[in-house]
Amino acid sequence: MGAKEFAGVFPYLVSPVDSDGKVKEAVLKSLVDHLIKKGVHGLTPLGSTGEFAYLTWPQRQRVVEVVVEAAGGRVPVVAGVAHTSIPEAVRQAKEMEKIGVDGILAIMDTYFPVPPDGVAAYFRGIAEAVSRPVVLYTNPTFSATNLSPEVIEALAATPNIRYLKDASANTGNLLTLMNRLEGKMKIFSASAHIPLAVMMFGGVGWMAGPSCVVPAESVKLYELARERRWEEAIIAQKRLWGINWVFQKYALAPCIKACLELQGFPVGAPIPPLQPLKGQALKEIEEVLKSLGALKV
Amino acid sequence: MGAKEFAGVFPYLVSPVDSDGKVKEAVLKSLVDHLIKKGVHGLTPLGSTGEFAYLTWPQRQRVVEVVVEAAGGRVPVVAGVAHTSIPEAVRQAKEMEKIGVDGILAIMDTYFPVPPDGVAAYFRGIAEAVSRPVVLYTNPTFSATNLSPEVIEALAATPNIRYLKDASANTGNLLTLMNRLEGKMKIFSASAHIPLAVMMFGGVGWMAGPSCVVPAESVKLYELARERRWEEAIIAQKRLWGINWVFQKYALAPCIKACLELQGFPVGAPIPPLQPLKGQALKEIEEVLKSLGALKV
Amino acid sequence: MGAKEFAGVFPYLVSPVDSDGKVKEAVLKSLVDHLIKKGVHGLTPLGSTGEFAYLTWPQRQRVVEVVVEAAGGRVPVVAGVAHTSIPEAVRQAKEMEKIGVDGILAIMDTYFPVPPDGVAAYFRGIAEAVSRPVVLYTNPTFSATNLSPEVIEALAATPNIRYLKDASANTGNLLTLMNRLEGKMKIFSASAHIPLAVMMFGGVGWMAGPSCVVPAESVKLYELARERRWEEAIIAQKRLWGINWVFQKYALAPCIKACLELQGFPVGAPIPPLQPLKGQALKEIEEVLKSLGALKV
Amino acid sequence: MGAKEFAGVFPYLVSPVDSDGKVKEAVLKSLVDHLIKKGVHGLTPLGSTGEFAYLTWPQRQRVVEVVVEAAGGRVPVVAGVAHTSIPEAVRQAKEMEKIGVDGILAIMDTYFPVPPDGVAAYFRGIAEAVSRPVVLYTNPTFSATNLSPEVIEALAATPNIRYLKDASANTGNLLTLMNRLEGKMKIFSASAHIPLAVMMFGGVGWMAGPSCVVPAESVKLYELARERRWEEAIIAQKRLWGINWVFQKYALAPCIKACLELQGFPVGAPIPPLQPLKGQALKEIEEVLKSLGALKV
Repeated sequence: MGAKEFAGVFPYLVSPVDSDGKVKEAVLKSLVDHLIKKGVHGLTPLGSTGEFAYLTWPQRQRVVEVVVEAAGGRVPVVAGVAHTSIPEAVRQAKEMEKIGVDGILAIMDTYFPVPPDGVAAYFRGIAEAVSRPVVLYTNPTFSATNLSPEVIEALAATPNIRYLKDASANTGNLLTLMNRLEGKMKIFSASAHIPLAVMMFGGVGWMAGPSCVVPAESVKLYELARERRWEEAIIAQKRLWGINWVFQKYALAPCIKACLELQGFPVGAPIPPLQPLKGQALKEIEEVLKSLGALKV
Repeated sequence: MGAKEFAGVFPYLVSPVDSDGKVKEAVLKSLVDHLIKKGVHGLTPLGSTGEFAYLTWPQRQRVVEVVVEAAGGRVPVVAGVAHTSIPEAVRQAKEMEKIGVDGILAIMDTYFPVPPDGVAAYFRGIAEAVSRPVVLYTNPTFSATNLSPEVIEALAATPNIRYLKDASANTGNLLTLMNRLEGKMKIFSASAHIPLAVMMFGGVGWMAGPSCVVPAESVKLYELARERRWEEAIIAQKRLWGINWVFQKYALAPCIKACLELQGFPVGAPIPPLQPLKGQALKEIEEVLKSLGALKV
Repeated sequence: MGAKEFAGVFPYLVSPVDSDGKVKEAVLKSLVDHLIKKGVHGLTPLGSTGEFAYLTWPQRQRVVEVVVEAAGGRVPVVAGVAHTSIPEAVRQAKEMEKIGVDGILAIMDTYFPVPPDGVAAYFRGIAEAVSRPVVLYTNPTFSATNLSPEVIEALAATPNIRYLKDASANTGNLLTLMNRLEGKMKIFSASAHIPLAVMMFGGVGWMAGPSCVVPAESVKLYELARERRWEEAIIAQKRLWGINWVFQKYALAPCIKACLELQGFPVGAPIPPLQPLKGQALKEIEEVLKSLGALKV
Repeated sequence: MGAKEFAGVFPYLVSPVDSDGKVKEAVLKSLVDHLIKKGVHGLTPLGSTGEFAYLTWPQRQRVVEVVVEAAGGRVPVVAGVAHTSIPEAVRQAKEMEKIGVDGILAIMDTYFPVPPDGVAAYFRGIAEAVSRPVVLYTNPTFSATNLSPEVIEALAATPNIRYLKDASANTGNLLTLMNRLEGKMKIFSASAHIPLAVMMFGGVGWMAGPSCVVPAESVKLYELARERRWEEAIIAQKRLWGINWVFQKYALAPCIKACLELQGFPVGAPIPPLQPLKGQALKEIEEVLKSLGALKV
């Protein structure tokens, strides 16, 4: 798969794990198969939605093995790698490559503030350890990494750092980056941005949790944007945004798992110490899915 | 002017004040005249760019008098009103109405955190004291006011609260608001958003400092968006965004004043304790103006 | 009074205002008289507890006039002055001096971030406009002013900037400041610090809202600390801290007003948009006052 | 060692690692031996100062093995355990117990915000998996864990959760906790607090990086506080605080490593992506050590 450029809708997969810590392989496989049949262009296990922070290393490994196997080369798999330590992140990336992923989503966990040189060293370390393309993941909400425009631009010189996925919610800053990186790095939106707004200014797609739940509608929106049919895309985007409006009120990963349970995928509860949604939140989730026709009645 | 709906490009005016604290009336008048001739649809004195926080009340009053007089009814004037205290904000709003403004931009300063009921009481207090339309201004960066979607929606029931101007930089949240407020309140973008992204989803224009410096280009972009000529609008927006990219690195008000000085409007230095731009910042400002053709050589 | 150094317990006074915006003079006078009889060493109207941010200028003026008159020279009155604008703060300080205050508590409101030179100019501007001693007020929680150790040390060169009152809650940083400022500026604690911990390392007293409610106990603690009777002071401080523990859960100004009402001072409700305490909060307030013997049964 | 209560000065040890990632065992052993000879009452590997976040698991394991062996039962060793995942933290704690530590310092890493029930489950999970005493570590600066007073109080019911080490810098909040937890949990200060202020109100000692560098002076201060010789303790504390004043300007772990290098312990550079101190910072570090007599000339 490695030769083809990444573009389109890459759902962030949830990590279904039972109460004994075992990866629920059957449901993960059926979810992968379902998403591919609905037309998604790639799959991203171990992003934020994948609760990577709450998984042990063997669980992370198993999740990615199952996804790679279930995808069977039909779409590229871009797996998350995340740590504070450079050697540990490098080790993870190498193991992911051995499992057979098509790309690495590089996430930098933080504890102490890290100076710009240290941030660059972290991402460069991962990229130089693997041969697959690397997607930089900036997420100022959950990880305090200071990935400044200057550092991102410097990282663009590393040949296989080819994509940026920004979860900052500040679309203006992202346009600034897109203007600066034109021709050097391709941009994916995260669910914190309005995907259509990013596509409009040159983005190549989105990597986001909600697309797990509304894959067909997401693919449709992507196609409209790619064909530059803006009037139809605007209507589709406004309608689809209803789901983000609810998700942003509650915790993202528990929301996606709750939605998938409602849709008939028994992915189970969020991984402790995260807690499942209750009462009013569940009701709102159900209503918004119904309003989008994403729930069989 | 009151009968017409507000829409289009409303530059946030700077407040030119000399070192003795006197409003520089001649340059303010000539700036107003220049902007109207370039086609702007309204004028907004005493927004953030207008350094309202650093002006005394008599200075604020004089700035608005000069603007109203210079505009001479050619475009609507929407003046900023800002305080922590309800009676003081009400007093300001009434005096602004006497001066002859066409609308009030209502800003809530904060000191202690204020509960939602208190926030609603502040804005309702202003609106009920005047007969002109009121624009709610949300600015979580500089003012800690918690204008939640629920409070905004409740305020929409006050007849003359008719517009919302959001300076949050989070376009996703703004789309959520736009979806909820459809038919109840009209939305203006601030310079923290990409104006075209807001227009696309139903916004009616933007109130922003940068339009002081690139009025013709801003009006052109607005017209393209209004006529739904998206392909041309995208190109115009990407080009125009270069100016925000520089402004966001430095303080906004000092940037706009520096630009206007370069363009031949002697608006003077930022008002103390704000400090003027120096060295590298000034160079970058000059370069970006040149690249946009906004500087006579 | 000006000749004597400020030291000891300076309660931050509440601002009793009725629903028409009139200062409730009788209750304010009786509170001032009560506090002086309980032994407090000074009075501070228009601090945070005084809800200065929610008062109009005429209300601020009237509050200070009443306090100065009621104090009648028995203890020094140090009045708060607060604005974003230098000329406006200077004007306020001059008017306060005319009313007859013994010192100025200088507070810097913020809107835009202000560079260090601008911060220094603000405080120096106030100090040079008056002949009374000035107390610098640092409050990073409610005002984003960057009063760095370097700026504070530079300000110590202005002859009448003689005191610092820190509301940062970070006692370690305050000790750093105390070490640096030894012999140049005297330090008052705010209610965010444990007063005894500040006294121990060289502080000269505290300016704080809770002392309005437990004046005799506060004076007793101060005397123990001044006489270096640490063992008794520790016991007194631990006991007295119970009140801060409750106040910090709820908003400070509404708490103090609620306490005074319970103690028989009809100071009224917090000033809108602030909201009065209710239910559980009121109960906790009552219990803690009882436990300290600060409520007649 | 398990039978004795923890109390006194527990230096946070640095983790000396060479450029190949190998633990520098000789220097770590000699540091441990030196600190014990200087009188410290315990040792804490893998705290923040120990750069735990930048170590792989085998490195963490090796650091603790070396410390336990070098301590040889002379003082208790309390090792840090830190993760986002409950099973992973439990695994770490069990392995630490096997290595022979005397206590566990339980740190909760965060990614998503975790609700209070999840936070309690994390710490309870660790405590129930081991038989050694557990020290709760609250660090709102570097880890967003919401360890509210209510959750801490609930955790006190778990028999071996016996200590709390707070790194919040807010000594007032810590006194509130101390009042609530009296008789249920013992309190250690972190370097963000003034140790003497915590001891005064009932603390039993401190766990802090700076004590690595000034062990004898720290032990002396502890003895003065324990013997309630407050006047001498105040002088000692004010003097010793000079070192925190410098450390807080720069990154803590790089500072401690730089100090130890100056003192003749070749502990090496901070672990990437952290960066070593340079220029001015190094000079200030050297000066403060000299001023405290902590540097042989």
